[in-house]
Amino acid sequence: MRQSQLFTKIERNAPKDEATVNAQLLARAGFVSKLMSGVYSYLPLGLRTLNKIENIVREEMDAVGGQEISMPMIHPKANWMTTGGWDKIDVLFKVKSRTEKDYALGQSEEEVVTPLVMKYVNTYKDLPKAVYQINWKFRDELRSKSGLLRGVEFLMKDMYSFHETQEDFEKYFAEVKKAYFKIFDRLGLVAKATEASGGAFTQKISYEFMVLTDAGEDDILYCDACEFCVNAEIAKEKEGDKCTRCGGKGTLAKAKASEVGNVFDLGQKFAKDFDVTFADKEGKKQYPIMGCYGIGISRLMGVIVEKYHDEGGILWPESVAPFTVHLLALGAADGSKAYESLQKAGVQVLYDDRDVTPGAKFAEADLIGIPWRIVVSQKLQADGGDNVELKKRSEKEAKIIPLDEALKAIKARH
Amino acid sequence: MRQSQLFTKIERNAPKDEATVNAQLLARAGFVSKLMSGVYSYLPLGLRTLNKIENIVREEMDAVGGQEISMPMIHPKANWMTTGGWDKIDVLFKVKSRTEKDYALGQSEEEVVTPLVMKYVNTYKDLPKAVYQINWKFRDELRSKSGLLRGVEFLMKDMYSFHETQEDFEKYFAEVKKAYFKIFDRLGLVAKATEASGGAFTQKISYEFMVLTDAGEDDILYCDACEFCVNAEIAKEKEGDKCTRCGGKGTLAKAKASEVGNVFDLGQKFAKDFDVTFADKEGKKQYPIMGCYGIGISRLMGVIVEKYHDEGGILWPESVAPFTVHLLALGAADGSKAYESLQKAGVQVLYDDRDVTPGAKFAEADLIGIPWRIVVSQKLQADGGDNVELKKRSEKEAKIIPLDEALKAIKARH
Repeated sequence: MRQSQLFTKIERNAPKDEATVNAQLLARAGFVSKLMSGVYSYLPLGLRTLNKIENIVREEMDAVGGQEISMPMIHPKANWMTTGGWDKIDVLFKVKSRTEKDYALGQSEEEVVTPLVMKYVNTYKDLPKAVYQINWKFRDELRSKSGLLRGVEFLMKDMYSFHETQEDFEKYFAEVKKAYFKIFDRLGLVAKATEASGGAFTQKISYEFMVLTDAGEDDILYCDACEFCVNAEIAKEKEGDKCTRCGGKGTLAKAKASEVGNVFDLGQKFAKDFDVTFADKEGKKQYPIMGCYGIGISRLMGVIVEKYHDEGGILWPESVAPFTVHLLALGAADGSKAYESLQKAGVQVLYDDRDVTPGAKFAEADLIGIPWRIVVSQKLQADGGDNVELKKRSEKEAKIIPLDEALKAIKARH
Repeated sequence: MRQSQLFTKIERNAPKDEATVNAQLLARAGFVSKLMSGVYSYLPLGLRTLNKIENIVREEMDAVGGQEISMPMIHPKANWMTTGGWDKIDVLFKVKSRTEKDYALGQSEEEVVTPLVMKYVNTYKDLPKAVYQINWKFRDELRSKSGLLRGVEFLMKDMYSFHETQEDFEKYFAEVKKAYFKIFDRLGLVAKATEASGGAFTQKISYEFMVLTDAGEDDILYCDACEFCVNAEIAKEKEGDKCTRCGGKGTLAKAKASEVGNVFDLGQKFAKDFDVTFADKEGKKQYPIMGCYGIGISRLMGVIVEKYHDEGGILWPESVAPFTVHLLALGAADGSKAYESLQKAGVQVLYDDRDVTPGAKFAEADLIGIPWRIVVSQKLQADGGDNVELKKRSEKEAKIIPLDEALKAIKARH
């Protein structure tokens, strides 16, 4: 895409009402625009990155047999009364129609998915089933000051699985846990799985996937030698204690972290609430065991920025960068030839063809954070050759090489 | 995909609470499931079709220079007070937070997009700009009994354009009108553009794109000889009149129709409401001229079913069918080889590998409405050959030919 055509523009100064690095950088670089606290528009660059995160999550959910569906965001009150959520969940937005009907805005979808899936499940032969959606959710947050890390409206992947037996559920639960680590790895993040209590409805142990970041809203304790990690709120241990999980090999450290996903053992709660059953091998009615698996897609975008930035701006991992190459044409140089070559090679390229100073172009490229930068200028091509300057956003050094070689270097890393 | 794994199942009987063909067939065939009046879940087959409609619309909006963004669904009251919509628009859903803050749920996005786009527009050099989103909208409908044709929650593409002059706007308006006809054509629909009044806020002439269908909620008058078409509600003419547009060559006919898109000349109303301006060539502040361009994506899915069905079920146009081929393995026959060949050839195939009677498989295939059907059976392969039965959903006759040739016939039509 030609940057002269791009809808957004860079803002020199950080917005005054944003306290976090992710919101400041994403707003300045034109990825998002704040409508109100916790509610953002995703602009062309931001939507491209959001879609890439979404597609990585989608691929891994498909790989564990999840089937994608799309459930409504506006729900009848009756479903939320059935589970007790209408009165218990304080972040549940409530809507009244002009004829005084009551609705809830989805903040999770057990209330919709449980009767929906069980409508199509008659016997044990129809199990297991796993369905997921990638859709916007709403939470009536009292304060929402962490940019994309705590949204009033936010994009989430939520999967729900239904099983005949506890054993079958646990097998699947472990499989999804593995898929989650794969997703965070593909996004360039290291997540730790904390054992946590399963939310408002269950005392069963579930997992929260936490990424260490100073912008995080949770405190975790983790072992510096083994995988042990626990939310500090519910921990019996304290900072500096020897880890009991690995027999004292490691010591517990405390850190701020952001929850980017969770997996919950829902047991039979929701199936019992809706009284939805399947016939087992003996023809006896049974309640299915359910699991719930969330990932915060828009929150991940914020967490990635919290981890990958420097004083100049964002450094996107290639897997989620809005473009792979940022092509800058300096002064009177024409970048069209390089632009076309890159496009022909199937490389996603943002071409800065604007009439602004080289300094502005360099600064804005650093802010936007596309992984590879290619510069064309009259000086580089003074010898009549085809030289360009190739530089990675994450490295200091640049190389001056012919366009062909630059292309090869980029393709080699894909 | 193997049908034995597909989350949904066919329902033999039409749901009792659905009055329209689109809702009955889509529910029976497992494309959608109703949560409440006007609110549906989109199941795996339904989501595939919805995504295909969405992508056709996206391609044509990109082709006219639209840039995709994603705007919030929950809006601050202040924006809707600024335009007068808070009190004037009766279908606007209103939400109160637990701290008594008022929000609206988006039913259109002029209130968000006007200040958003103009934040990035300083001078005439930044114009024109066109941005669009494909996102869910909410309308507080009093009654919603037309299946996907009138949703309380529905998927819509809404584009907004901003121009320096009326002339520039009109040029773009005509371009988008052309793109709309192209979209409906790709979806297998014939749309007529009626001249209509521009909604609550403007007296300017705008266009509504109507598809003739008995399930439609509007009455239109159209000329049987020329392109003249008008909403019967605002028409001065009546049925049987000679058409004045083409000098009496044609006669006006009346028909039920469903609105699938619209383009509005918004003038400067919203720019003036928000007092957002750009500097013209002389440096003088001016209000931009705005256009608004909607297409009902989920509604289109319903309209397509209203047009393309017979007594056996749906007949999807290939461009939006959830799969291209429905492969049925009868009795003890193994369809795996054909399944793999089709997949290898890049054909999207639903493979009915279930242990049910041939009669049930044929009836369900007709109901789901995938354009091509391939049958494998022991009888067809009794001579040791590789014969399959190939049939189009829209035709009565089937051919018995080798798998290779069936594949060629399908690929040739793509």
